[in-house]
Amino acid sequence: MITLGIDPGTRHLGWGVVRAEANRIFHVAHGVINAGATLSLAERLQIIDDQLGAVIEKYRPSVGSVETLFFHKDPQAAAKLGHARGVVLLNLARASVIVAEYPPAHVKRAIAGKGNADKRQVALMIRALLALPVTPSADAADALALAVTHCRRAPLDSALEARRSGLPAHPALAQLLRGKRRGGIIARGVHS
Amino acid sequence: MITLGIDPGTRHLGWGVVRAEANRIFHVAHGVINAGATLSLAERLQIIDDQLGAVIEKYRPSVGSVETLFFHKDPQAAAKLGHARGVVLLNLARASVIVAEYPPAHVKRAIAGKGNADKRQVALMIRALLALPVTPSADAADALALAVTHCRRAPLDSALEARRSGLPAHPALAQLLRGKRRGGIIARGVHS
Repeated sequence: MITLGIDPGTRHLGWGVVRAEANRIFHVAHGVINAGATLSLAERLQIIDDQLGAVIEKYRPSVGSVETLFFHKDPQAAAKLGHARGVVLLNLARASVIVAEYPPAHVKRAIAGKGNADKRQVALMIRALLALPVTPSADAADALALAVTHCRRAPLDSALEARRSGLPAHPALAQLLRGKRRGGIIARGVHS
Repeated sequence: MITLGIDPGTRHLGWGVVRAEANRIFHVAHGVINAGATLSLAERLQIIDDQLGAVIEKYRPSVGSVETLFFHKDPQAAAKLGHARGVVLLNLARASVIVAEYPPAHVKRAIAGKGNADKRQVALMIRALLALPVTPSADAADALALAVTHCRRAPLDSALEARRSGLPAHPALAQLLRGKRRGGIIARGVHS
């Protein structure tokens, strides 16, 4: 499964692609789309659209992992972020990529073990988890963190859903449910 | 000059096209893009993108007139509106359409004579100003109001800018500046 994590912003948009294979997560690519501070908002959105479209075209993810919508207290920041996020969701919908959403605190807890981890801690953990030669920039690290969180959560969520529905659990899913008790820090491999 | 007014929303997006010719404003077309309440936000944005793209392709406006960004107090509403507005701005940028922005109170004052006019008053005034056979829906009327506001304001703003810069005023612009003193309610014709 190829997952694209996206950390939207109208000036800097981080993206990160990972591949979940058997029980491991591999780094594929990451980067930041810099839309330029001197351009108008409309022009910046066009740059994001062009470049994010090219990323999706190149890596063909099956899932796009983004932060949940409502966590900003400042309406101006929320509206600006909404513009970039709108272009992100549009690109995912156009390419028939499934959208998965996670709250920021959930991502931080999944990657760095605590919901209030700072950006530096997340970036360092992402470097270690994905065996990257250098620490990625904060925007790209946040995007990779979203992608990794999805790879780890998706089979677990399916298992929990199956249990809630009373469906018989697949042995691998039962293993996942047991694994959940280990809590906190994400393991290098993901059991799928 | 063809102007497209747009009133963004993630469920209903109003649009209206007017043509300013010599000293009059003519209605060209208007409508509402209904993105459907049952679809995901990403799917709704794709519908908006497709249908608004078709409107721009058909009417080829030189200017897109939209409300200014920051007037919502509720971060959730601001973020949601931001998504639709992002797709709107993207479509305008893609087609090289100039973006003009007006505060809602400014539009209401320009159309209905007071900054706190309600949607019904704006719709009735738009019907009268553009000699429409029936009152347009609130979303389409707001979009037409934005387009008409731009047609009326744009030459005036140029004239004021010229005067501030100390440039010699074109006779037509001088006439506009005198016309400004008439204030309030928009006249049927626009002097350009």
